[in-house]
Amino acid sequence: MKVVNIIEKVFILIKAAVIGATGYAGQELMRLLIQHPHVEVSVITSRSNKDERYDSMYGNYTKVSELTFSENDILEVSEQVDIIFLALPHGIASNLVTKEVLSNAKVIDLGADFRLSDVNVYENWYDTKHGNQPLLKEESIYGLCELNRSEISKYSLIANPGCYTTCSILSLAPIIDKHFIDKSSIIIDAKSGVTGAGRSLDISTHFTECNESMKAYKIASHRHTPEIEEQLTKVAGEDIHLLFVPHLVPMNRGILATCYVKLKEEIHIDYIYQMYLEFYKDEHFIRLLNKGMNPETKWVKGSNFCDIGINIDPRTNTLIVVGAIDNLIKGAAGQAVQNMNILFNLKETTGLEGIPMFPA
Amino acid sequence: MKVVNIIEKVFILIKAAVIGATGYAGQELMRLLIQHPHVEVSVITSRSNKDERYDSMYGNYTKVSELTFSENDILEVSEQVDIIFLALPHGIASNLVTKEVLSNAKVIDLGADFRLSDVNVYENWYDTKHGNQPLLKEESIYGLCELNRSEISKYSLIANPGCYTTCSILSLAPIIDKHFIDKSSIIIDAKSGVTGAGRSLDISTHFTECNESMKAYKIASHRHTPEIEEQLTKVAGEDIHLLFVPHLVPMNRGILATCYVKLKEEIHIDYIYQMYLEFYKDEHFIRLLNKGMNPETKWVKGSNFCDIGINIDPRTNTLIVVGAIDNLIKGAAGQAVQNMNILFNLKETTGLEGIPMFPA
Amino acid sequence: MKVVNIIEKVFILIKAAVIGATGYAGQELMRLLIQHPHVEVSVITSRSNKDERYDSMYGNYTKVSELTFSENDILEVSEQVDIIFLALPHGIASNLVTKEVLSNAKVIDLGADFRLSDVNVYENWYDTKHGNQPLLKEESIYGLCELNRSEISKYSLIANPGCYTTCSILSLAPIIDKHFIDKSSIIIDAKSGVTGAGRSLDISTHFTECNESMKAYKIASHRHTPEIEEQLTKVAGEDIHLLFVPHLVPMNRGILATCYVKLKEEIHIDYIYQMYLEFYKDEHFIRLLNKGMNPETKWVKGSNFCDIGINIDPRTNTLIVVGAIDNLIKGAAGQAVQNMNILFNLKETTGLEGIPMFPA
Amino acid sequence: MKVVNIIEKVFILIKAAVIGATGYAGQELMRLLIQHPHVEVSVITSRSNKDERYDSMYGNYTKVSELTFSENDILEVSEQVDIIFLALPHGIASNLVTKEVLSNAKVIDLGADFRLSDVNVYENWYDTKHGNQPLLKEESIYGLCELNRSEISKYSLIANPGCYTTCSILSLAPIIDKHFIDKSSIIIDAKSGVTGAGRSLDISTHFTECNESMKAYKIASHRHTPEIEEQLTKVAGEDIHLLFVPHLVPMNRGILATCYVKLKEEIHIDYIYQMYLEFYKDEHFIRLLNKGMNPETKWVKGSNFCDIGINIDPRTNTLIVVGAIDNLIKGAAGQAVQNMNILFNLKETTGLEGIPMFPA
Repeated sequence: MKVVNIIEKVFILIKAAVIGATGYAGQELMRLLIQHPHVEVSVITSRSNKDERYDSMYGNYTKVSELTFSENDILEVSEQVDIIFLALPHGIASNLVTKEVLSNAKVIDLGADFRLSDVNVYENWYDTKHGNQPLLKEESIYGLCELNRSEISKYSLIANPGCYTTCSILSLAPIIDKHFIDKSSIIIDAKSGVTGAGRSLDISTHFTECNESMKAYKIASHRHTPEIEEQLTKVAGEDIHLLFVPHLVPMNRGILATCYVKLKEEIHIDYIYQMYLEFYKDEHFIRLLNKGMNPETKWVKGSNFCDIGINIDPRTNTLIVVGAIDNLIKGAAGQAVQNMNILFNLKETTGLEGIPMFPA
Repeated sequence: MKVVNIIEKVFILIKAAVIGATGYAGQELMRLLIQHPHVEVSVITSRSNKDERYDSMYGNYTKVSELTFSENDILEVSEQVDIIFLALPHGIASNLVTKEVLSNAKVIDLGADFRLSDVNVYENWYDTKHGNQPLLKEESIYGLCELNRSEISKYSLIANPGCYTTCSILSLAPIIDKHFIDKSSIIIDAKSGVTGAGRSLDISTHFTECNESMKAYKIASHRHTPEIEEQLTKVAGEDIHLLFVPHLVPMNRGILATCYVKLKEEIHIDYIYQMYLEFYKDEHFIRLLNKGMNPETKWVKGSNFCDIGINIDPRTNTLIVVGAIDNLIKGAAGQAVQNMNILFNLKETTGLEGIPMFPA
Repeated sequence: MKVVNIIEKVFILIKAAVIGATGYAGQELMRLLIQHPHVEVSVITSRSNKDERYDSMYGNYTKVSELTFSENDILEVSEQVDIIFLALPHGIASNLVTKEVLSNAKVIDLGADFRLSDVNVYENWYDTKHGNQPLLKEESIYGLCELNRSEISKYSLIANPGCYTTCSILSLAPIIDKHFIDKSSIIIDAKSGVTGAGRSLDISTHFTECNESMKAYKIASHRHTPEIEEQLTKVAGEDIHLLFVPHLVPMNRGILATCYVKLKEEIHIDYIYQMYLEFYKDEHFIRLLNKGMNPETKWVKGSNFCDIGINIDPRTNTLIVVGAIDNLIKGAAGQAVQNMNILFNLKETTGLEGIPMFPA
Repeated sequence: MKVVNIIEKVFILIKAAVIGATGYAGQELMRLLIQHPHVEVSVITSRSNKDERYDSMYGNYTKVSELTFSENDILEVSEQVDIIFLALPHGIASNLVTKEVLSNAKVIDLGADFRLSDVNVYENWYDTKHGNQPLLKEESIYGLCELNRSEISKYSLIANPGCYTTCSILSLAPIIDKHFIDKSSIIIDAKSGVTGAGRSLDISTHFTECNESMKAYKIASHRHTPEIEEQLTKVAGEDIHLLFVPHLVPMNRGILATCYVKLKEEIHIDYIYQMYLEFYKDEHFIRLLNKGMNPETKWVKGSNFCDIGINIDPRTNTLIVVGAIDNLIKGAAGQAVQNMNILFNLKETTGLEGIPMFPA
C-alpha cells in the first residue's frame, strides 16, 4: 500500500442542464453526467412531468439523484448553466435554440436538427420545415469527435451524430477517399438493439412482438442515410451515395454495422489494416481489433468504445468492415459528453473511462 | 354442425428411422414425423445413447413417444424401414450410406455430404475426404424442393439443403438468370438464431456469452457459400460467385437473409415483383409479401414457410431481397419432410400445414 | 410402406366464431381452430377492425386464412355458427351473451366474467358490475376440464379458466382435501412470460423495459386469486384462502407455479406421489414427472400439457409442487378447444396433439 | 463554470491480485478494481492460462488492460500485493490460504470455503473436506458488510457472501429477531439470471436450452441455504431453519428474492416499514423502496445497490419482502470491493458509486 501526496490545483465544475431527460438517450446522458467528476446537473426540464422527481420515472436514480423536472424555458435555463444538452425528437431543437441562448451557454443537441448542413436535404428526409437556418449555417458544427475535433471547440452549438451514423462513418472514414475502392458500391447492413427505437410505445417494440424475431426496416429510407453520406462525402472529397439498411435485433443495446465496399484492384489486407491503424492511432475510443478478429456488441456495451474489424474477401474482391458501438453511449450520450469535454478543454476521456460491462 | 360421410380408401403408412435424433434438426424432424399422418417413426439410433429413452433427453416427448435409442447399424435399419433420415455432422453420412442401404430404403441426408456435386469443392471447404463419390455422382440429388421437385422423385438419396442456403437461394433464384442484374455484385448478409449453431456446447453459445449481443462470424468463409453458388449457378446458367456473411442473433430460431444485387439498368419494382410472383405462383411454402412489406422471422417461426420481400433503392440502383425462414423447419427438418412427401408421392404439404406459432 | 384401407364413416364439422381474435389468446385460438380437423372458423368480429383481413394484423396467417373481420353482433353470429369463442377484456362478455344467444350456439368465454360463482367476489376483485347474474348462476360452468369434465357437457356457457389459475389448481388439487396439509399455509409463487400481459401497449411491457429484468407485481392482489380459491375450496370441501404472488419473466410464453404447502405431519414423498398418479391417471394432458424431476416451461411450450413435479423438504416439512403450462394454450386457447371437444363429444385431445416445440 | 482549488493531501494506492479472474465474478471484480481510484491490479494468476493476455479472454478489456496471467503461487503473490481476491470454485481456497499468506496480505475469498463457521455443516452441504479449519475458526469473518462491518476490519481473511445469500439476508435481517413473526414459516423463492451459473459450459446454460424458459432447481437443497440460516440465526438469537428454492431466469444478471414470513399477529405495514427504515438508515447501498413499490432487477443492474420492497397480505397475514441485487456486484464483486474499502479504511462507497445502467 503506497501513500502518495497529490496536489490537484485547479478543479473545474460545469453546470449542466438536460432538456429531454425522459428518453433513453437523455437518461443515459444523465447517468454519465452525474458520474462525471467535473459536472453538476442542476436543471432538467419537462413540461409534462413538471415537479416530478427523476427517480420516480427511472428507478435506477433512487438515492442517486433528487432532481425534479422544472418547466423553465430554454432561455431561463441558459442563464443558470454552462451547457445545455437537448435530447428531443427532430424538429424541436431548431425551434428552441436561439443566438441569445448560445450567448449564455453551450448547446449540444443529440437530435437531428443541426446534423445536415443542407436544409433541403433535411426537409426532404425529415418531412418538416427547419426552424432556424441561420443557426444551422453559422453557429453549429457536426460533432463526430474523431473527425471534427479541431473544429468543435470553435462552436457553441454541437450537432451530436446519430447512432447508426457514428458507427458507419467511423467504420468507413479511413478508406473512403482511397482510389482503390469503388465509391458507388458501398452497402451498410446495420443491426440495432431496441433502445434505438426509443421509449415511446409502439406495437413493433412491444416485448412479445420484437423478442425472438428479427427484421429489416426502413430499407434504403432511414434518415441516417443522408447524414452518413454528407460526412463521408466530406472525407472523400467527392459525392458519396450509399445504401443503408437497418435491422432490429432483440437485445437492449448495441449497433453492429457490416459495411461492404468493392475493391477496384487486389489489395492486401495488411495495407488496409495499416491505413486504419494510422488513421486512428491517437484515438482512445477506437479499438481496431487484431486482424482476423471482429467486433461483438457485448464487448463495447456500457462504454464509449467503437470496435472495428477489417476483412477482405478475395473471391469477390470486397472489403468488409464491421463496426460496433453501444448505441446509447458512443452513439448518443457518450459522444455528447466527449463533445462537452472538448468544448471545455477537459481531457477527452474524462467521465468516459467506464470499462464495458460484461455480461450485461 | 354438419355431419359428413367421408370414405378415404387408401392410407399409406411409411416406416421411418432417424439417425441423429439427438441434435436440434433431428429433434425437430422427430416432432414433424411423429405428427405426420402417414409416418411411423420406428427406429432411432445412437451409439452413445443406446437404450436411453428419447423423452429423457428431450422432455417435450414425455407421454408423446416411448422410443428408445438402438445401436443398429444403418444396413440393419434399412431393412426395417422405408426411409432413413440422417442428421449428422458432415463427413459421417458419406461413410455410412451404401448402394445396399439405398436398395432397401430411401435416404434423406440433412447433412452436407451430398450437397456439393464437385468433390473438390466439398473437400476444400469441409477440409475432409469425401466418403463415397460414386453415390454422390450417381445416386444423389440436391433436394431444394421448389427448384428440383421433378428430379427428386427419381432418386433414392436426397441431399437436404442447408439452412442459410435454402433462404438465400429461394430469395435470389427468380432473378438470378436475368440480364439486368450484375451477377458479380451479389452480397448476402444473413442473420441466424442460435439453434443454427447446434446443441454442442461451446463458449460462443453459452447463454451469457451470446445473449444480448450480436456479431458477424465466418465472414466470407462459411461452408454454405459454395452450396448457394452451385445452385444459383445452375439456375443462372453461368458461374455465380458471391459474398456470404452470416451473423449470430440472440434468439432461438429464424434466419433472415438480406440479399443485395446491383441492377445494371433502371427497372421498375413491379416488373421484378411480377417475376417473383410468376416464379413462385404454384409454391405453397413461398409467401411473396405484398410490395412494401418485408419479412420478420416471427411470422414464419414453427412453419415450413419462406417469406420474401422485394425492394429497390433507386438512389443506388440496388435490388434488396429479404428472405425469412425457420432454420429448423424450412431450413432443415421441414424441407426433409417435404422431400419425403415428394418421394412417396404424398401431397407435398402433408404434415407441414402447421401455422406459424406466435408469439413463440 | 403399408397400404391400409380406412373407412371413416361420420365426420363432424363445427362452425365456429371468434369474438376477440385480435388479442394473443384469441390469436392462439385461431391457430388451434384452423388446424382442428373438425372446425371451420367462419366468423371473426371486431368493430374497430371491420373489413380488415386477419393476416394483415397477424402475418403468420398469410396464405393460411383469408378471413376478414365483420362487425356483426353476437346474436347474428350465433345464428351462423355452432360455437362462439369470446376472448375479451373482463366486463364485456357478461353484457354480450344472452339466453337467446345460448339457444343458438354454445359459448366458451376465455375472459373472467363467468369464472367466479359469487357475484360479490367478482365485483370486489374486478371493480365493476356484473352484466348478467342469471346467466352466471344458471347457465354457466367453470371449464377446468380435468376437474369438471362431467359437468361441462351439460352447459352451453363455459367459463374458460385463467392461465395462472389453471396451473395453480392442477398443481394443488390432488392434495388439497387431505388432512395432512396445513390448508392455511398455501403460497403460490407464480412466474409468467410476457404474453400473459396481452397485446395492449404499456410501458411495463415495452421491450427494453421488461427484457433482462424480473419483478413481482400485484402481490397478493392479483385477480386470479379468488378464482383459485373458489375451485380449491370446492375440491377441499372447506374454505381455502391462500397467498398468490405473480412475477413477470422476460420470455414470451410459459407459466411456472411454485406452490408451497406445509405438511402437518411427516409424509413420505412416495405417498404423495402416488396420490397425484392416481388423481391424474386418466388425464392425457397432465404429465406427472418422475420423482426428482421438475418442470421447465420449455418442455410444454406450444402444447396443451401441464407438467407437474413433486418435492418435499424434510427440513421444514414443506411440500413443494411445481407446475408448468403454456399460458396461451393450456392456460387459454388450448383449454378452450378442450372444452369445445367435450361439448361436441369429440375425443378430448382432437386438435391438441401438437408436440411441444423446442427450442422455441 | 466554477473553478475550485482542491488539495487532496494523502492518496492511498492498494496493490491487488486476483486469483480466479477467468470466471464471471472474477471478471466483474477486475472491472471494479481497475476503475477503483485507489487500486492497482498488479497480478492475475491462472495456471491453465499462463502468459495469456486478459483482453484476449475478455474482449471488453481491449485497450483497457494489458495484464497477463502469471502462474505464481499464492505465497509469492502475497509478497507482491496488499490484498488478494480469490474467485475460485469451493474447496480450493481453504487449501491455498495459509497463515503466512495472511501475514503478508489481506485476503477476500469470493468462494464458499470460509462462509460457514461449522465445518460439519460445510462438509455436509459441499460434500468435501475443509482444507483449513484453524484459519476458518480464528482468522476469518463473514463479510456481509451491512451486518458485520465493525468486525470485518479486525480480520485479514474475509469470506465474501454468496449472491442468493446476500439478497436473502438483507431482505430478512431487520425483522428476523422479532416476536411477531413465525420463525418456522420462512420461505425464500429466489430467481437468478444465468451469470449465477458461471462460465463453465453445461447443457443447462447453453443458450437455446435456457433462453425463453424458466425452471426451479436444487429445490430445498441449494448450498446457500445453510449460509442464509447461519447468518439469520445469529441475528435472531435462535435457530432459524428455512426453505430456499432457487429458479433460473433467462436473463444475464440479477437476483430477485421473494421472501415469505407468516405473521403471528396482525401488524400494520407502517410498523414494519419503520423497522426497516431504522435498521438501514445509515446504509448507502440499501434502498428501501417507498411503500407500495417493489424491486425490479433492472433498477439495480450494474450497481452495488440492494433494493427492498415491503408488503403485507392481510388475507393470509403474511409478510412478503422482495429484495433485488445485481448478483455479480452486491452479490459478489461489488461486496468484495466494499469489504476491501472497510479493510483499508477507505470510504465504503469508493469505486462503487456507479449508477445502475438502464436499459442494460
